[in-house]
Amino acid sequence: MRISRYILPTLKEDPSDAVVSSHRLMMRAGLIRKESAGMYVYLPLGLRALRKVIAIIKEEMDAAGAHEFLMPEMTSADLWRESGRWDSMGPEMFRIRDRNGLEYALAPTHEEAFTAVVRSLISSYRDLPLNVYQINTKFRDEIRPRYGVIRSKEFIMKDAYSFDMDEKGLDESYQAMRRAYRQIFQRCGLETIPVQADTGSMGGSDSEEFMVASEVGEEVLLLCGSCDYKANQEKAEFRRGDRKGGGAPEALREVSTPDVKTIADLAAFFQCDEGLFLKSIVYLADGAPVMAVVPGNREINELKLARALKATALELAPDSVVEEVTGAPVGFAGPVTDKKVRMLFDLAVKGVVNGITGANKKDLHYAGVNPGRDFTIGEEYDLTKAVAGDPCPKCGSPMRETKGIEVGHIFKLGYKYTKSMKVSVLNEQGRETTPIMGCYGIGVNRTVAAIVEQHHDDKGIIWPKAIAPFDVHLVGIWKEEQELRALEGLYDTLSKAGFEVLYDDRKASPGIKFADADLAGLPVRVTAGKGYFQTGDLEIKCRWGGEVVKVKESGLVEAIRDSLAGCP
Amino acid sequence: MRISRYILPTLKEDPSDAVVSSHRLMMRAGLIRKESAGMYVYLPLGLRALRKVIAIIKEEMDAAGAHEFLMPEMTSADLWRESGRWDSMGPEMFRIRDRNGLEYALAPTHEEAFTAVVRSLISSYRDLPLNVYQINTKFRDEIRPRYGVIRSKEFIMKDAYSFDMDEKGLDESYQAMRRAYRQIFQRCGLETIPVQADTGSMGGSDSEEFMVASEVGEEVLLLCGSCDYKANQEKAEFRRGDRKGGGAPEALREVSTPDVKTIADLAAFFQCDEGLFLKSIVYLADGAPVMAVVPGNREINELKLARALKATALELAPDSVVEEVTGAPVGFAGPVTDKKVRMLFDLAVKGVVNGITGANKKDLHYAGVNPGRDFTIGEEYDLTKAVAGDPCPKCGSPMRETKGIEVGHIFKLGYKYTKSMKVSVLNEQGRETTPIMGCYGIGVNRTVAAIVEQHHDDKGIIWPKAIAPFDVHLVGIWKEEQELRALEGLYDTLSKAGFEVLYDDRKASPGIKFADADLAGLPVRVTAGKGYFQTGDLEIKCRWGGEVVKVKESGLVEAIRDSLAGCP
Repeated sequence: MRISRYILPTLKEDPSDAVVSSHRLMMRAGLIRKESAGMYVYLPLGLRALRKVIAIIKEEMDAAGAHEFLMPEMTSADLWRESGRWDSMGPEMFRIRDRNGLEYALAPTHEEAFTAVVRSLISSYRDLPLNVYQINTKFRDEIRPRYGVIRSKEFIMKDAYSFDMDEKGLDESYQAMRRAYRQIFQRCGLETIPVQADTGSMGGSDSEEFMVASEVGEEVLLLCGSCDYKANQEKAEFRRGDRKGGGAPEALREVSTPDVKTIADLAAFFQCDEGLFLKSIVYLADGAPVMAVVPGNREINELKLARALKATALELAPDSVVEEVTGAPVGFAGPVTDKKVRMLFDLAVKGVVNGITGANKKDLHYAGVNPGRDFTIGEEYDLTKAVAGDPCPKCGSPMRETKGIEVGHIFKLGYKYTKSMKVSVLNEQGRETTPIMGCYGIGVNRTVAAIVEQHHDDKGIIWPKAIAPFDVHLVGIWKEEQELRALEGLYDTLSKAGFEVLYDDRKASPGIKFADADLAGLPVRVTAGKGYFQTGDLEIKCRWGGEVVKVKESGLVEAIRDSLAGCP
Repeated sequence: MRISRYILPTLKEDPSDAVVSSHRLMMRAGLIRKESAGMYVYLPLGLRALRKVIAIIKEEMDAAGAHEFLMPEMTSADLWRESGRWDSMGPEMFRIRDRNGLEYALAPTHEEAFTAVVRSLISSYRDLPLNVYQINTKFRDEIRPRYGVIRSKEFIMKDAYSFDMDEKGLDESYQAMRRAYRQIFQRCGLETIPVQADTGSMGGSDSEEFMVASEVGEEVLLLCGSCDYKANQEKAEFRRGDRKGGGAPEALREVSTPDVKTIADLAAFFQCDEGLFLKSIVYLADGAPVMAVVPGNREINELKLARALKATALELAPDSVVEEVTGAPVGFAGPVTDKKVRMLFDLAVKGVVNGITGANKKDLHYAGVNPGRDFTIGEEYDLTKAVAGDPCPKCGSPMRETKGIEVGHIFKLGYKYTKSMKVSVLNEQGRETTPIMGCYGIGVNRTVAAIVEQHHDDKGIIWPKAIAPFDVHLVGIWKEEQELRALEGLYDTLSKAGFEVLYDDRKASPGIKFADADLAGLPVRVTAGKGYFQTGDLEIKCRWGGEVVKVKESGLVEAIRDSLAGCP
């Protein structure tokens, strides 16, 4: 492609709203343009990169035996009602009504739509296992779109859904996708961290996210330094056994604590470790009040709490409910009470000796609180967030935190959709059987962005060769028309050799051309200038590093092949 | 692809809601499934055909020098407001609001979005000409979706937009697209009729639609039997010169016509030709009343009337306005009046001698009406619909009518968007200049449907080879495992020879397999059964017709190549 006839609007300056490298460089290199908040236009160069990721995903999904479909992006509300998600999906799902009054979701995901069509296609165990997928546009009413195409309102996803006769079958389908995903990201030149993840509102059991480590990642990951334990903070566990406080149990006593508001204030007031406090927080779980009790030095992980409660909707209780449940204003809740309220205790609570907690009375706390004696630990769960330094749940070594961008997610859905949407097939014995599902997603746009995030320097993008929009950046430095004609011949030679060549034939300065080449980040740069016209010398440079190599035209094709072979 | 592992749910019966052949066969052959009214799922076989059409379109657009983009499908209302179309687009455009209150259209077309991004990319005459396109999903709030994917609420379009410095440049861009479109449809094996068309609400001048003749087409076309004149009825002209009535002008006289309502009633009452009546109809054109006067034997073509009036909105005036304008109840309007109302006359009115018209008084008509004497013909236009039998405007031969499905449309938009959205570039003299646009669309889904509509028989689809989901349908007829193994070898041979093979390896009866092969309509069927296992004889049959040919395995690949070469 001749740049003089191409659309390659590189920018010298960083766009003011681009705070992350990938967004900045995708704008500057002319891959994308913003249309409106959270909405991006792909220019030709960006679309080429996107298509290369799509092609790799398609090849690997096909190789894994999945079948490609194309679903409507507007999905009928009736389908969402069947699964019960029309009401539970929340404000991130765009909803629309047509002029006949029919309602639709602009689909953020396609469990219902695929389940409905598969339901019409299968009747027997012979039709399973089945893995169906599409690569299609999705929508999300993102309240704060940011980071360019990493978090936008409209995006392309590959979403796949497996249907199996039983859990063993599901596990095989799941493992096939685990392998395919590793292969996909590896072929894209993207180093991912597969972590254990929560299954969120989807329901289900096993779940793995493919994360790309990044300072701007919106997910927090806990990684063990010794073993292979890696988990999203939403899901991460940590080894327990910590005992807080000590000595002989003291008597329970009331302490007046006016104007002592926060845990830090209380720790100062009582001159003790924050972990000795039993922080008691009242929630509404699907509308019913519950109290969660955790050590004062720990944050509640609300996803863990919701999972423990099997709650669909979990929110902090309003003050009025707190007062009703505890008999005291907000700030003095605690587990030592005669009131009947469902209580869930974090695993660490039982290890507290002579703790401190709200007395369910205004301006009063209890000290000398001892679990078992002063209150009963009934329901006990892991309810708190793991943080850096916590011991790994597998090996006990300290874990570290890192931030990550999620590019893929696989999980075992279980029977949620096949049961609610009444999918059944006859098993080998001729009995009606409900298939079990898995679900497998890849964010295509953010995969491209994550590749840029992971592979760039201060001059521009450094594309892995499999995703690079072109293989070769041919920089022609010419003044006379006859030089341009010679360059055209070179361009022709490289194109005929099968390379995808971006050929800078512009009448521009070498400085501008080199800067644009660095910005565009194609794997191999070939420079043809004065040396070429005088002595036939061409220069080859790999964008991934290394020296400039001089070569004659006769050895050029092979030299480019070598250089490409050396690129990631 | 082995059918035993593929998703190919053929249907023996026609779906009850499928009234056209393409819909019926696309359902029966397992290409599509209905999700909800006007919403279709593409199954793997259908998606393959769709992709082949897309690939041809992309190749020809790229060859024509167009640049591929990918635009958001949700386009910001601000863009539509800039062009003025947020208000004028009407109820077919889906509109949606996000939770931050921003409004969007689910784009039915992308003039605004492309104009906005191109505006940011061009600054000089050197950046033009430019032709940008995408292949992407579009939405339309279709009040009566029908005919399967021919008229659905969500569909894939290729839409392209050219930007040129002047009309000469636009004409070159337009002609390049005319050539590309002919090439695209020819490669798809689709015979299209390019017809002159109205530019509708888009504004603009030249316009050509690519129609596929079909009984179920929703457009009416007028085709000359002698010359190359072809036009959509919306646009079609016809040669005038007809003179109605005759003799010496009679005196104008009032005739009482109580209970004579329709033109047919009047013709019976006056015992004369319907063409002698001057039918006078009152409209509101952008809110202002106008009277259109046409011969009684002709239908008004409202698109022609709107174009003559340069009106954006045209509707029949309500009774109250008719009464106000004419001074009489509805049914007695006529051009012989003292009232001031803008009147437009069809070209045929001036040829009427001793005509009849409403007297603008209840239950009264005028007879002996003569244009020029009794009223003045000021604004004279072609206002009526051409119909079968009318003389061709070019050569005068009678035209015939046919129905057609529109698969493509090219038109010269002019300055509508570049002016309203303030696009400008510097010309060679350094002066700000507004570029001129063209617009070029192809309906991808309905192109596939039109191919099926055009190429099928009572047994199923007959795919043109360029669009066929696979090249070869290998029908294996086996009983023993060792026969299946031999068939696998054959499948392997054909795949390695580079054919896309759909291999029927099922344990099913030959009758079922042949019926499915006829339904699927792949160009070449290879049957391997008893003859193959016993004497090595294979049978080749072309779905387009011709005899079954026997061939040995050694000659199979060549025989298939020959057979494919003989297919359209």
